Amino acid sequence: MLEFINSPKDLKKLDIDSLPQVCQEIRDKIINIVEKNGGHLSANLGVVELIVALYYVFDFPKDKLIFDVGHQSYTHKILTERKELFDTLRKEGGLSGFPNIFESVYDSYTSGHAGSSVSAGLGYCEARDALGQDYYVICLVGDGALVNGVTLEALVNSEEKPEKFLVILNDNGMSISKNTSGLYKTISRLSRQKSYSKTMKKANNKIGKNWFGKQLKAFKSFIKRMLSPLASLELVGLRYVGVYDGNNVKQTVKILKDIKETQRINLLHLATTKGKGNLDAERNSEKYHGIGKHFISSINSFSQEFGKTLTEFAEQDKRFRVITAGMRDGTGLTDFSNEYPDRFIDVGIAEEHALTMSAGIALGGVKPYFVVYSTFLQRCYDQISIDICLQKLPVCICIDRAGLVGSDGQTHQGIFDLSYLNHIPNLTILSPKDPIEFRDMLNFSYTYNSPLAIRYNNGVSQNFLDHKPFDLSWEKVINNAKADFTILAVGHRMNKLALEIQEKSSKKINIINARVVKPLDTKLLGEINTPIITLEENVLNGGFGSAVQNYLLENNSNLSVKSFGVKQEFISHATVDSQLLQSGLYAENIIKVMELYEKK
Amino acid sequence: MLEFINSPKDLKKLDIDSLPQVCQEIRDKIINIVEKNGGHLSANLGVVELIVALYYVFDFPKDKLIFDVGHQSYTHKILTERKELFDTLRKEGGLSGFPNIFESVYDSYTSGHAGSSVSAGLGYCEARDALGQDYYVICLVGDGALVNGVTLEALVNSEEKPEKFLVILNDNGMSISKNTSGLYKTISRLSRQKSYSKTMKKANNKIGKNWFGKQLKAFKSFIKRMLSPLASLELVGLRYVGVYDGNNVKQTVKILKDIKETQRINLLHLATTKGKGNLDAERNSEKYHGIGKHFISSINSFSQEFGKTLTEFAEQDKRFRVITAGMRDGTGLTDFSNEYPDRFIDVGIAEEHALTMSAGIALGGVKPYFVVYSTFLQRCYDQISIDICLQKLPVCICIDRAGLVGSDGQTHQGIFDLSYLNHIPNLTILSPKDPIEFRDMLNFSYTYNSPLAIRYNNGVSQNFLDHKPFDLSWEKVINNAKADFTILAVGHRMNKLALEIQEKSSKKINIINARVVKPLDTKLLGEINTPIITLEENVLNGGFGSAVQNYLLENNSNLSVKSFGVKQEFISHATVDSQLLQSGLYAENIIKVMELYEKK
Repeated sequence: MLEFINSPKDLKKLDIDSLPQVCQEIRDKIINIVEKNGGHLSANLGVVELIVALYYVFDFPKDKLIFDVGHQSYTHKILTERKELFDTLRKEGGLSGFPNIFESVYDSYTSGHAGSSVSAGLGYCEARDALGQDYYVICLVGDGALVNGVTLEALVNSEEKPEKFLVILNDNGMSISKNTSGLYKTISRLSRQKSYSKTMKKANNKIGKNWFGKQLKAFKSFIKRMLSPLASLELVGLRYVGVYDGNNVKQTVKILKDIKETQRINLLHLATTKGKGNLDAERNSEKYHGIGKHFISSINSFSQEFGKTLTEFAEQDKRFRVITAGMRDGTGLTDFSNEYPDRFIDVGIAEEHALTMSAGIALGGVKPYFVVYSTFLQRCYDQISIDICLQKLPVCICIDRAGLVGSDGQTHQGIFDLSYLNHIPNLTILSPKDPIEFRDMLNFSYTYNSPLAIRYNNGVSQNFLDHKPFDLSWEKVINNAKADFTILAVGHRMNKLALEIQEKSSKKINIINARVVKPLDTKLLGEINTPIITLEENVLNGGFGSAVQNYLLENNSNLSVKSFGVKQEFISHATVDSQLLQSGLYAENIIKVMELYEKK
Repeated sequence: MLEFINSPKDLKKLDIDSLPQVCQEIRDKIINIVEKNGGHLSANLGVVELIVALYYVFDFPKDKLIFDVGHQSYTHKILTERKELFDTLRKEGGLSGFPNIFESVYDSYTSGHAGSSVSAGLGYCEARDALGQDYYVICLVGDGALVNGVTLEALVNSEEKPEKFLVILNDNGMSISKNTSGLYKTISRLSRQKSYSKTMKKANNKIGKNWFGKQLKAFKSFIKRMLSPLASLELVGLRYVGVYDGNNVKQTVKILKDIKETQRINLLHLATTKGKGNLDAERNSEKYHGIGKHFISSINSFSQEFGKTLTEFAEQDKRFRVITAGMRDGTGLTDFSNEYPDRFIDVGIAEEHALTMSAGIALGGVKPYFVVYSTFLQRCYDQISIDICLQKLPVCICIDRAGLVGSDGQTHQGIFDLSYLNHIPNLTILSPKDPIEFRDMLNFSYTYNSPLAIRYNNGVSQNFLDHKPFDLSWEKVINNAKADFTILAVGHRMNKLALEIQEKSSKKINIINARVVKPLDTKLLGEINTPIITLEENVLNGGFGSAVQNYLLENNSNLSVKSFGVKQEFISHATVDSQLLQSGLYAENIIKVMELYEKK
């Protein structure tokens, strides 16, 4: 059936009874491609019916479908003239794993970070009404994104919501990790009150059909408040209905048609099953959230080391708390959280609250470790500055997925953190060359009485052979009295690259592991008497190399510096190796530049 | 009476009947000092009774009082061993206008930005319970901060709230500007339901006193849901009571005592009158929000120009929207919003929602202008990057209060924006030398089809005499064929400073108005053949001078560069002139450095 569907038009021609089969074929296609390319399996399998129903009822791209987070957009891509390209998913030059406005007119918003869809949808409506246009705006929000501050700001904002605006709450009973939020539990409790939607339906049917309408409206409101904690949403202009089975495609079509015709409802609550159609993924949807090729979970050496070291801390009975924002498994905390639930706090996708709460924990005298992906820490720039660094609090921020991230692409790159952290007063920034050094840094951090950030990359990172004990200085890795160049390398991949350059180059090269990004080790810097090469997995502007250059210029040094970093762009999905190549971060390129180099 | 009160202990000795007089004396003192020093009048007059009651009942600093925003902390400062210092308020070396943990043990959190108190309070509780300590944690939240995403994240987080934790909602019927939020209106509607608290009281009294307790509890819950949209808060562990008159000190003492003893309630809703006790301030609390000496509103030339130019846009029937996050008056939009309410959107203190909605408005085909203080834009770092710049959207961000801000001090400095914006791809950054150039930039912005930020300072900024038409290049202000130095100046005060240096120095100096901070005008930069001085009202790291240095080094230029900017610190309250002096941003200092300068 799917072979005849190339665009939404083709889908609309089908009889409603054919839709379950279409869904089955889409589901097979998704499983097939994710097995080959890796990707987000569980979330996509959960929403197949919902997306098919949306395309059956609404007129995209005239109507706008805005995904929150966006990792659940595979069915949407298959239905919108991208079926033939679907096996390029997450590959270089192929389809992005997320909606992207530059990829297709059907992608009405480039998603990636949680919480943006409702605000963006309200913006679309504002413009539409200003221009006197006529289209529907639909925001698809998962329960994980519901507790995010941006979603909440948008939902409570304004007493009236615009016309032809629909928020669909896709409730699959969990955010990425087990959602510990009270709001979420409230909603899941509501899901079990089957009576609610029935009562609502009756009340709705009766309204307007007899002269008791007004009284019934009051009664309806009464029933709602009795039954539903979400009913108070009406007071911020949200007219709620639910809970329906979002995996029942025919019923979902009917509900959506009804909503489109009557325009009474703007918050639809659907329950879906994450991983639907793949028993293994249904049972273990966390494992299948983001998954590698052949459904093999990717190994992240630094994340593993984090979980391991924190477990050792707990065994030593150290006083600390680990805080995560919905990323328990990705940050290596699965075992830790099971063994030490009292020391572990998952606030859901609420990074700002997580970091401000960490500030409070530190002020109260307990050591907080906030672990977060580099890209999501962007949400906390203000908190790092005002809540943590202005108060000089000993919060340790562990920045996972720093640097290039590979196939997740543009919205998930961790290539800006050095730039948005480097200028914040009172902050110390570290980057370990390998997991062993990371462990040493964590041990150091426990008694470090000031704001600290430690950044490290994803993927497999093997340990180096030699280690000098960690203190707040750089490590001389190769140090000859006479050398042609000195490489300052930040982090695992750049230290590996430095060694490769040193081996392949005909020049004599010293290597320094610049494990302390801020403050610069100006003592060691002052000893260097060769031209300098800096290597970092971050954009150059405002990063490590920039700071080295500024320092040398301000101190009237005659040393020349050549800095290599990630190009100043939102880097698209590809392998990490390819992304390094694109930015010139490979040995041959740097050796070539060194050969052109003139000593000043 | 106040003369005998130096610390909370003294207050506690008093008879409850003396408290109204104490409040009156504190109120007089506040009015007196704010008239002399300027400051936040309305908010502080509103909470005198509430703070006095808190100090009468609780044991600070053992118990923790956390202010949200913190501009309402004057009574707190007077009561906590700082009465004698109170006339140094907001003066250099004197008391900060906000709580500051380094100023007093009674200040348990350094506040300044809205929304942090509940998260911080929950953090304190987590640490307290981890350490087996025993104290009360009280968060004082204004209605303005209630709609902020961080507050909302914290409130909905977790099903259970800790013991001895109290959120006080100080509802004064408005946030800084008129609050248009639906949630706020919900709460204010609730305030009028006087029956609610009476019913609650009855229900509370009966519970536990007879064997119908259990039934009554169910009945209580029923009543609550009937009457209160806030009742659903119970499902996130918030046990609500209100609304009481927060300006009735004796009643407030009784309520707080009851809460402390029974520990049943953790969300107390009080109504207070902003500006209470000063008729003029009560009637016009917006004017008296933040006010200068002698109660004269400060003049901000750029903000005024913004309002004026946008009004002209509207008169020309241009298609745009102006979005602000609770800062209508401060950003110069009072008149505009009254004349063109349909083009004006105030979302309340919800910066992230504001900017993401702006993204949606731009995608929908209407031009958005988001106007915000530099310090509050910090909340939007992620949105600027992922929502605006990754999608290359033509949103114009107008950054008011950029640079040094004077007496608001550390939490409000606008000295980081160039650093947190400079490295974001696809973003153009401008800084006008005067209001005339700002108007030209705004005219330019309307058709500029890419992300744009324009930063400008507060205070009176007079226009320069000469102007070259604006395009995306730098302006040669003084340009002699032979010169000793070239100054690149960013923004109004630095261009003024450049002229002053040029007049006072014995050297021949060229001046360039570097009105385009990003991208650099590399053509003009390439023409320079003298040593360069850069001047910016931003920290050096990652800012304009740093970018100039990096560019020249990367391009093997032999020019030497000396950069001047704000020192890498959270700068305390003082006059702007004094803050410029502290950072060496004054003519004599720069002339001295130039004289030491050696041409390379």
